Amino acid sequence: MSNKPRTAISPTREENYAEWYQQVIRGADLAENSPVRGCMVIKPWGYALWENMQRVLDDMFKATGHQNAYFPLFIPLSFLQKEAAHVEGFAKECAVVTHHRLEVGPDGKLVPSGELEEPLIVRPTSETIIGDAFSRWVQSYRDLPLLINQWANVVRWEMRTRMFLRTTEFLWQEGHTAHATAEEARAETMQMLNVYAEFAENWMALPVIKGEKTAGERFPGADHTFSIEAMMQDRKALQAGTSHFLGQNFAKASEIRFLDHNGAQQYAWTTSWGVSTRLIGGLIMTHSDDDGLILPPRIAPAQVVIIPIFRSDEERPRVLEYCRSVASELRAQRFADRPLSVIVDERDERGGDKVWHWIKKGVPVRLEIGPRDMEKDSVFVGRRDKGHKDKQSVARNEFIATVGATLQSIQDGLFARAQAYRDQHTRRIDTREEFYAFFTAEREQENQPAPIHGGFALTHFGGDVELERKIKDDLSVTVRCIPLEKSEPGTCPFTGKPSTQRVIWAKAY
Amino acid sequence: MSNKPRTAISPTREENYAEWYQQVIRGADLAENSPVRGCMVIKPWGYALWENMQRVLDDMFKATGHQNAYFPLFIPLSFLQKEAAHVEGFAKECAVVTHHRLEVGPDGKLVPSGELEEPLIVRPTSETIIGDAFSRWVQSYRDLPLLINQWANVVRWEMRTRMFLRTTEFLWQEGHTAHATAEEARAETMQMLNVYAEFAENWMALPVIKGEKTAGERFPGADHTFSIEAMMQDRKALQAGTSHFLGQNFAKASEIRFLDHNGAQQYAWTTSWGVSTRLIGGLIMTHSDDDGLILPPRIAPAQVVIIPIFRSDEERPRVLEYCRSVASELRAQRFADRPLSVIVDERDERGGDKVWHWIKKGVPVRLEIGPRDMEKDSVFVGRRDKGHKDKQSVARNEFIATVGATLQSIQDGLFARAQAYRDQHTRRIDTREEFYAFFTAEREQENQPAPIHGGFALTHFGGDVELERKIKDDLSVTVRCIPLEKSEPGTCPFTGKPSTQRVIWAKAY
Repeated sequence: MSNKPRTAISPTREENYAEWYQQVIRGADLAENSPVRGCMVIKPWGYALWENMQRVLDDMFKATGHQNAYFPLFIPLSFLQKEAAHVEGFAKECAVVTHHRLEVGPDGKLVPSGELEEPLIVRPTSETIIGDAFSRWVQSYRDLPLLINQWANVVRWEMRTRMFLRTTEFLWQEGHTAHATAEEARAETMQMLNVYAEFAENWMALPVIKGEKTAGERFPGADHTFSIEAMMQDRKALQAGTSHFLGQNFAKASEIRFLDHNGAQQYAWTTSWGVSTRLIGGLIMTHSDDDGLILPPRIAPAQVVIIPIFRSDEERPRVLEYCRSVASELRAQRFADRPLSVIVDERDERGGDKVWHWIKKGVPVRLEIGPRDMEKDSVFVGRRDKGHKDKQSVARNEFIATVGATLQSIQDGLFARAQAYRDQHTRRIDTREEFYAFFTAEREQENQPAPIHGGFALTHFGGDVELERKIKDDLSVTVRCIPLEKSEPGTCPFTGKPSTQRVIWAKAY
Repeated sequence: MSNKPRTAISPTREENYAEWYQQVIRGADLAENSPVRGCMVIKPWGYALWENMQRVLDDMFKATGHQNAYFPLFIPLSFLQKEAAHVEGFAKECAVVTHHRLEVGPDGKLVPSGELEEPLIVRPTSETIIGDAFSRWVQSYRDLPLLINQWANVVRWEMRTRMFLRTTEFLWQEGHTAHATAEEARAETMQMLNVYAEFAENWMALPVIKGEKTAGERFPGADHTFSIEAMMQDRKALQAGTSHFLGQNFAKASEIRFLDHNGAQQYAWTTSWGVSTRLIGGLIMTHSDDDGLILPPRIAPAQVVIIPIFRSDEERPRVLEYCRSVASELRAQRFADRPLSVIVDERDERGGDKVWHWIKKGVPVRLEIGPRDMEKDSVFVGRRDKGHKDKQSVARNEFIATVGATLQSIQDGLFARAQAYRDQHTRRIDTREEFYAFFTAEREQENQPAPIHGGFALTHFGGDVELERKIKDDLSVTVRCIPLEKSEPGTCPFTGKPSTQRVIWAKAY
């Protein structure tokens, strides 16, 4: 019926982007849906990726003076209510614990029992419970700044969930800091935004735009919310990390006060910032192709997989031995601050099946090694950033000597490719008509399950929350951020008002 | 009123052991109670200790072939019910989520809303939800063994809580494995018990006894439960880790089945095993003294603290510079598989206050360095395992050359001291009278808030669950374990029946 080349993932991105995403996750065995509504199981390959991300981020947090701590999973209802905008933002989607045991009911079934005097909320975020602790920890200016991070699970009862991108329970880190002055808190907010951008770009190979959110997209209770925004391959935006300047809102709600140098009581200034397993969704949607996941080498659970090729039981031990010796030479090298991670796939499967297995799992470099390669003392190299047929025979020693450079070139190539894609689908727009066409034109051309739209539109904007809402209703498009990198002043195409700089519009996850 | 020497912690162990424990935690700033019933906040010093424990254990799990994954926080009520003994064991103490949002009630207050069709339990342990995943992951003998570990928070609604030892929410790891044969599952159960014992002894300096639990103390749903048991300084036992052989109970409950080599359907054999933040409670109660926490060097967040001593602002920069150079020489060394962790305490506090600060926090080695030490190129060394006045001047180069050996001797000394304490308070008992006296005698002698009892009693035992319960009612003493290391056969002092070996009795946390 079709002459299209075979792809390991079906449907392809073009055929059905949303379903392709699910199938990439399945093909790479990263995660699966669980029987608990909206909660996923993160499988070993996905969790190993998260562990690498945690390790790198944790080092960056510690290098900037933060310490880890752990706070309760449960938040008393009364705490959530302390900050008005905050409770408004989270009340509609939180898991509520109302009982503390089960007993056998009249029909013989187990029913909740032991009703709590005050319901507990499973934390959707921890500003209020951490604020309570900070109110005890902060007494004097000597206790500031207080720089804390927590690695934790949080729960938000989302109506529509999608693995990694939006799940009822997710894993994240949440930084919470308190400072003596607004200036210091602002500096912290920007510092952590920069840490996130550096992590996204240098480790995940995700080009991101740093910017501030408009009032309508702000974190509930924040004075200013900043984010890093990335473009996915369906040209939608993904908010990949946020950093909030909370002003004195939570300090007032939680009574975080300190005696300043002059002996006067002051409210502290606080920040919070977080990234989550959602970043994995961003990584999948940015780099993967129709053959499955593509992992940036600096964050991959394994950088190199070695696939022994043999035709007989007689060849087997010799080939395995050779493969193991290549692996151990590779493991003696370091890449991205740790020993190179190498898998020798000794499973009892056909070589071709193994190759496709690791293509779908996104391992950056594959080596196929059989008796003929051994004779020449060479290895047969496939790079995941190239086509699956594009393989090369390379002298063993040469491969080993250059593997670090090869991996870095894959890393750089993935970043450059994602950046080129983003640039290609980003347009400066100066009229309302062009803006509406940008977000609708391709929808009409192609009859797709997930319509492709224009991408990122950069326009001047002089409007308000009301106008943003109207545009969202019309096009499902919102202001993703006001970029920190300032553009020239101009005129808002929607209101005709003067505007100091352009904002970024996009559909978003 | 008293001539007792000053201690940093009040009350002392003798005066009030339970309160001393709380004050050691407070003095070391490890954790605090939170406003959420039974939940604690783990503060940075306590969490850094937990991170070290996690790192070492995680390496040991991976070295034995396990992979990490992550499963949902919530367990559907129907899942918990799949295994009869299991639900019986956990139904009385679980947090139940019944609603998924809040709305404004008639009196203007927020109330739970959006009732769930099926209540969700916050995981008290994950056999049932992980079993469900395993039923999908295991299809053939090729999928076995399946060796998974999860780092997670769990919740058990305990009525009486105590920081680290028993909290409503706690952090732990839970290993879950599935095997093709009972033999392999048994071997895994014992392997992980040995991993725990090795970790407890070599890293935490906790001497432990490996043994099997009696039927009454078994994990709900297990065929056999094994544990490591340690003796605290009030001579009570602490169960410091458990490893369960689950037989086919959970495999049958969750339908974990596989096609064997002959194409026949078989139920898998499963195990589970866990240690938790409770181990920190065990560390505190084993090593600390009346001046506060004492940390084993191999697991301490910092091995060495340097306290600069100066009397004037003029001396200050010179002394700080010297201290920093000593620190950087120390940090170039490795201890316990990682760089030596050294703190230079540059805070603006009195030297004496700093010394006591770090004594209470348990740092193994303190260096006080002032201008006179600098002149002699020496450092003034205090060891946390010795008295606080027992300090020595040591040539700088000599200290740096021998710091690894010093730390290891502290580590070994702590272990030896704990083992000697345990041996001193362990008695082989052959009559009922002596047994009852062992657990009551000292209670009468001393009028203590927490009566001191004998310790560990080793008796033969030919009784049953009923007799164990009687003895528990009489003395609050239970069989902690049937040691793996077999003793000689003999006669049960309670029943007169022949017995193949001795068991360990103790009061327990």
